[in-house]
Amino acid sequence: MSFLADLLTTVFERRYRRASEPDNQGRSIEALCTDLLSSSGEVSGMVLARHILDGYGAMEDGEKRDFFGFLTEHLGINTDAVGRALNAYSAEASKSNYQDFMGASEPKRQELARRLNHVPGATKQLVEMRKDLLRLARKHPELAVVDLDFRHLFASWFNRGFLVLRPISWESPADILDKIIAYEAVHAIHSWDDLRNRLQPADRRCFGFFHPAMPDEPLIFVEVALTQGIPGSVQGVLTEDRDNIAAEEADTAVFYSISNCQAGLAGISFGNSLIKQVVADLSRELPNLTSFVTLSPIPGLNRWLAETDRQIDDPDDQQQREIAANYLLTAKRPNGAPYDPVARFHLGNGALIHAVHAGADLSENGLAQSGGAMVNYLYDLPLITQNHERYASAQTVVASPEVSALSAAAKPQDT
Amino acid sequence: MSFLADLLTTVFERRYRRASEPDNQGRSIEALCTDLLSSSGEVSGMVLARHILDGYGAMEDGEKRDFFGFLTEHLGINTDAVGRALNAYSAEASKSNYQDFMGASEPKRQELARRLNHVPGATKQLVEMRKDLLRLARKHPELAVVDLDFRHLFASWFNRGFLVLRPISWESPADILDKIIAYEAVHAIHSWDDLRNRLQPADRRCFGFFHPAMPDEPLIFVEVALTQGIPGSVQGVLTEDRDNIAAEEADTAVFYSISNCQAGLAGISFGNSLIKQVVADLSRELPNLTSFVTLSPIPGLNRWLAETDRQIDDPDDQQQREIAANYLLTAKRPNGAPYDPVARFHLGNGALIHAVHAGADLSENGLAQSGGAMVNYLYDLPLITQNHERYASAQTVVASPEVSALSAAAKPQDT
Amino acid sequence: MSFLADLLTTVFERRYRRASEPDNQGRSIEALCTDLLSSSGEVSGMVLARHILDGYGAMEDGEKRDFFGFLTEHLGINTDAVGRALNAYSAEASKSNYQDFMGASEPKRQELARRLNHVPGATKQLVEMRKDLLRLARKHPELAVVDLDFRHLFASWFNRGFLVLRPISWESPADILDKIIAYEAVHAIHSWDDLRNRLQPADRRCFGFFHPAMPDEPLIFVEVALTQGIPGSVQGVLTEDRDNIAAEEADTAVFYSISNCQAGLAGISFGNSLIKQVVADLSRELPNLTSFVTLSPIPGLNRWLAETDRQIDDPDDQQQREIAANYLLTAKRPNGAPYDPVARFHLGNGALIHAVHAGADLSENGLAQSGGAMVNYLYDLPLITQNHERYASAQTVVASPEVSALSAAAKPQDT
Amino acid sequence: MSFLADLLTTVFERRYRRASEPDNQGRSIEALCTDLLSSSGEVSGMVLARHILDGYGAMEDGEKRDFFGFLTEHLGINTDAVGRALNAYSAEASKSNYQDFMGASEPKRQELARRLNHVPGATKQLVEMRKDLLRLARKHPELAVVDLDFRHLFASWFNRGFLVLRPISWESPADILDKIIAYEAVHAIHSWDDLRNRLQPADRRCFGFFHPAMPDEPLIFVEVALTQGIPGSVQGVLTEDRDNIAAEEADTAVFYSISNCQAGLAGISFGNSLIKQVVADLSRELPNLTSFVTLSPIPGLNRWLAETDRQIDDPDDQQQREIAANYLLTAKRPNGAPYDPVARFHLGNGALIHAVHAGADLSENGLAQSGGAMVNYLYDLPLITQNHERYASAQTVVASPEVSALSAAAKPQDT
Repeated sequence: MSFLADLLTTVFERRYRRASEPDNQGRSIEALCTDLLSSSGEVSGMVLARHILDGYGAMEDGEKRDFFGFLTEHLGINTDAVGRALNAYSAEASKSNYQDFMGASEPKRQELARRLNHVPGATKQLVEMRKDLLRLARKHPELAVVDLDFRHLFASWFNRGFLVLRPISWESPADILDKIIAYEAVHAIHSWDDLRNRLQPADRRCFGFFHPAMPDEPLIFVEVALTQGIPGSVQGVLTEDRDNIAAEEADTAVFYSISNCQAGLAGISFGNSLIKQVVADLSRELPNLTSFVTLSPIPGLNRWLAETDRQIDDPDDQQQREIAANYLLTAKRPNGAPYDPVARFHLGNGALIHAVHAGADLSENGLAQSGGAMVNYLYDLPLITQNHERYASAQTVVASPEVSALSAAAKPQDT
Repeated sequence: MSFLADLLTTVFERRYRRASEPDNQGRSIEALCTDLLSSSGEVSGMVLARHILDGYGAMEDGEKRDFFGFLTEHLGINTDAVGRALNAYSAEASKSNYQDFMGASEPKRQELARRLNHVPGATKQLVEMRKDLLRLARKHPELAVVDLDFRHLFASWFNRGFLVLRPISWESPADILDKIIAYEAVHAIHSWDDLRNRLQPADRRCFGFFHPAMPDEPLIFVEVALTQGIPGSVQGVLTEDRDNIAAEEADTAVFYSISNCQAGLAGISFGNSLIKQVVADLSRELPNLTSFVTLSPIPGLNRWLAETDRQIDDPDDQQQREIAANYLLTAKRPNGAPYDPVARFHLGNGALIHAVHAGADLSENGLAQSGGAMVNYLYDLPLITQNHERYASAQTVVASPEVSALSAAAKPQDT
Repeated sequence: MSFLADLLTTVFERRYRRASEPDNQGRSIEALCTDLLSSSGEVSGMVLARHILDGYGAMEDGEKRDFFGFLTEHLGINTDAVGRALNAYSAEASKSNYQDFMGASEPKRQELARRLNHVPGATKQLVEMRKDLLRLARKHPELAVVDLDFRHLFASWFNRGFLVLRPISWESPADILDKIIAYEAVHAIHSWDDLRNRLQPADRRCFGFFHPAMPDEPLIFVEVALTQGIPGSVQGVLTEDRDNIAAEEADTAVFYSISNCQAGLAGISFGNSLIKQVVADLSRELPNLTSFVTLSPIPGLNRWLAETDRQIDDPDDQQQREIAANYLLTAKRPNGAPYDPVARFHLGNGALIHAVHAGADLSENGLAQSGGAMVNYLYDLPLITQNHERYASAQTVVASPEVSALSAAAKPQDT
Repeated sequence: MSFLADLLTTVFERRYRRASEPDNQGRSIEALCTDLLSSSGEVSGMVLARHILDGYGAMEDGEKRDFFGFLTEHLGINTDAVGRALNAYSAEASKSNYQDFMGASEPKRQELARRLNHVPGATKQLVEMRKDLLRLARKHPELAVVDLDFRHLFASWFNRGFLVLRPISWESPADILDKIIAYEAVHAIHSWDDLRNRLQPADRRCFGFFHPAMPDEPLIFVEVALTQGIPGSVQGVLTEDRDNIAAEEADTAVFYSISNCQAGLAGISFGNSLIKQVVADLSRELPNLTSFVTLSPIPGLNRWLAETDRQIDDPDDQQQREIAANYLLTAKRPNGAPYDPVARFHLGNGALIHAVHAGADLSENGLAQSGGAMVNYLYDLPLITQNHERYASAQTVVASPEVSALSAAAKPQDT
């Protein structure tokens, strides 16, 4: 372990190092990119790459759009060249022909990104660059092809095998915790005291994925409550007035908040791996745990009720539960998948709908999106693969008998 | 730094963790690969991937060849599908068409490797797999196309931005040092005492590149002697009888051995980056250093003399130096590049030929390959880019006046 | 370094470990102490010690007073036995007689404390115990002798050679930073944002001493501002509206707050060592630093003015500076030492009085204690030993000509 | 954990730091000591202390003897002053009188050692100093009193609560492992391969105690074999030809070698704590372990047989076991304690004699000291305290029925 500890210190140190380097002599970022892609780029690449990244960092949105336009138009593939290489390879599947085809079919902007990434700290900057691109491509859809290359590279770089699961605790560095506060996307963290309340008690845990090249940036994190029985409201989980228990006394681990942190990694999925890893680690550490459930929002409920004109005024708790259960089991997108995005995520991972609760999230946001209703998805280890396969092959939504009964009991006018 | 230290511990712990997992029920590795590439692979992928890697690990060479044959024939690209996608994209450069083209032009075996890599420790196993492949492809050249995919992935995964430079010292873990002994490829390390002699004195350094997913495996390392003046023999560097100096007293850093460690990473170049990084780090730590040179073997000298019938019997030291200088400056491959592979490496990095020495490596190997002659390549920081560019554009070999004079003095019959 | 990193992890792990242990069967803490001091204590000592510490931890003040009374009366020295051993040693200075004398002249309560300290985490508990003792001894002066034994042990345990200087930064663990907020005794830290403002900018530093057996408890810490020139007010240092500078641009390091953290370590002096170590470390890291000064409160000024009936109403800034300078140079305790406790500390360390400022601390506390005046003590490295010796031998207060002039200008009625 | 990792790095860094300091101007070490003990010593102490330690390090034995003579004669206690202080305290047990007595009864050389210890790295040097003292005091018994002061200080500094238990493995730093090879005192380690054979297999462990101020120096270490059943010979444990087992398969942990490392810490006992801690840690990690035994030498057997004229020629294995059992149960020192020093250690810790083996250590040393016989001491956790107490109160030697029977069967002429 000790050597590993050392190993990454270098990453850190490099962040503070910047050799005194020649100026870029006022050349355009496009000219610098062309240079970097030339053979000389191998020796002087670090300096060029730094100039490009610094130059990009100082750009306004208009300039960024131009830069992405350059990537789109000038650093893409040459379809004629691809066609020639493909024909040659079709004629003779030799190594040489395959190499030519690979070279032709990969756009130069992928190699550009790899060379930019040689600079210490560049990975984070490239993730930020994609965040800009995704934003700008909404208005400039012609740039969207570039995002496919970013996404392809990032899927390789942020491969699960390169990610590191880290506990996040009250002993973690404050700069990391600062980011946890900023990135929490489900149940906002209102202060450092609120954060301490979620990290310090013996029956609370938090875990995140990190990448060694961005060691102070969580990629995704999950907050966990260790409880006796499955809780039915997030207020109960988050209140400071509860009695803490020892971790060994808990029989249930509740994943009550999962937040993606990096907009520039949109579409690179970590959540499934994170939950599985945390379940595995907690099982080993705390053998008394028998249930692994979420306490999840139902973000699409009220929107769907509104879209389908099914809202009823002031439902009582039982009505609210029936409405929510019915929504989760029956509301679909045109392609047959569940309407609710959180449901799609957990059902796709192999979880099942275990219970629904009224009055479970009384925050402004919770009331607005689902009238306060929440849902427990259950990760039942022996059933996960089977659930997943039923969902993957036939979009089957697996639910507990109790939830199915609630859904069935929903009055027609409610549904 | 502290958080970083923690960060990688997980990597280490995971090596010892193996959940009890269902058996693969006797299915073939090819069937498992097909499963892993299916959509279900997302949820049950870790188990499948482990079965595949374990299965591969237990294979004989014949089975490995069959496995690579499967990758070659069944998990390559479908040229028809690529052609259709290319045509569609040529007709309309939309995001959707580009995505289809990307999907078609990347062979399935790349995605297979990425999914295998989800397993903790898999990166090392995949590097070993390519080592097997390179070996087997010598006899079975039809497998060579698969290597291009491995190489493409590894160039992305082992990007300079993901590597970590680590000092290797007598305080390093013994299991790492064990590998240094095994991997040293230039001047063999004969014992732990010999190793201690290269690491412990204040005027000796060693640095290596590591990848966070293979934290106990050096990728490449360089051994450095801190000296007063430029040494002319490796015996002088390695003898135990020398007087050590304090690091601050040195004016010269001598790179006297550079070894690549992973046969499975052949062709993924790290040496250039390693030298530049070490030069930068040593410059900062020891501002008294003014010269950065190698003390390098001349591995092609005697072979070239034999090939060109220029050998002379029992040359004296001056003759030997003239012969070596002349060889380094004039012996060429058919494409005009220097004949000597070590010369190509350092000249390509922007170094120049500074001095040649006779009787500089009296080991059996040193005498056999170059009659004991060695050479100093000088990394003269302000000239590196210029040297590199002259070499890259016109294969110009830059040498010191002294070496040029030696070469010119070589008698015709010697050359 | 890596092994060191590992080394202390055990300390941490042990905090979470508690073997299941036999009950103490309702025996009194005094009986347990007697057992622990017996020879059997060597084998079963850990269990006994834990029972004693747990029992102590659960006590009310009255019981604690009784416990300290037991230490005072029953675990002190036996003067008769000391006398006999002293006579024997006076008669014959043999090893055996010296050993007997050492045994007799050390009270059993010191050995008790050493045996209690075998328990992981006990050091912190013993420091807390002394904190209780100091509090209770104010009302029960007969207990004060026990404190001398604690103090003697702690001076040995917290020897400078065992302390570790650590930078405290925004990357430090939140639980440590939580304590920094709690322990700051000079300029209160009002929030985590305030703390971030003191730690994160490139021109701010903080350092603390830690003991390996209490790794998450700072013993003392100092906050440092890196500035251009010597600042004249703490508002200027702490305002968020200032322009940060790069650390390399600074010529001055200002120690603007030094806080002792452990009431149970009162009288065990760390401040002198801390300042010297920080000066040494900063000098090495930032060779541009030429001045090391404090920006210190003058806590005794108004009290002294009141005691000596010298207060004047509403002094202007010049008057305030004259008053402060005069106080620092002339106000004395009966034994001739400076009246001001902060002055005694820095002058005793070899600093000199460099400048005084009016309106320099406009906080409620700053106005109350010194009408807002503050002082810079200068640590002029070549003069420190000489200043210290003049102060130590003759209580000479060294001041800059400017401060001496200010003092001299103070009107008689002001002084 | 992460902060702890950082924490000790400072210790390491300080080892390489040496400020440029004024010369000692040729003053004697005795004069420097006197200075260091004066009040000025508080400010300039670090420099003085370094001069003293450097001066000591350069001394020949004769000078060292003189230095210890100075400590003996000039820095001891003043019996008259002690007598006066004792009388005052006897008359009035005030804090002030107690403080005076404490001051008088502690010799100045203890304070000198504490002040020397302020220097980074000094702890190790002071331990070396005591090693010299113990050696020189054999010839110069008048110096022995000084050792009592060293021992008193070291017992406080090396308190169990300050020690850190560390696993020592093939991943440990080579410089630590180098010392393990050097310090192994029971079964010599012949090479790095031999060491690897004791550390790397899954059924081998090693643990040591370290002190944070001497982080690269083990104080004591124990080598452990994990086995199925209790082994009867050290050859069986150490052979390379055995079949390794997984740690989880073992039911027995065998402590086959315990070595103290620091001659300068003689008499400061760690062994008892080390064994108990290792038993506790292994129990937790490997719940399948049911037996904790030693495989110990019988170093006094042949010496005792010679002293008592009981040797018999060429005993067969059964005779040898009877002789050894009888020796362990009946051979006594004049004070009634067991004759065998290893027996005294383990019986004093609460172990019992479980089995004896003939032909169990066929090394030259093993044959010489015990004719190859060895013994298993069993640490039976529920009985440890009871065994210890019977031994402590009545020197009762507890043995298994089998060993008792062997002893009883020993023929009179053998015993």
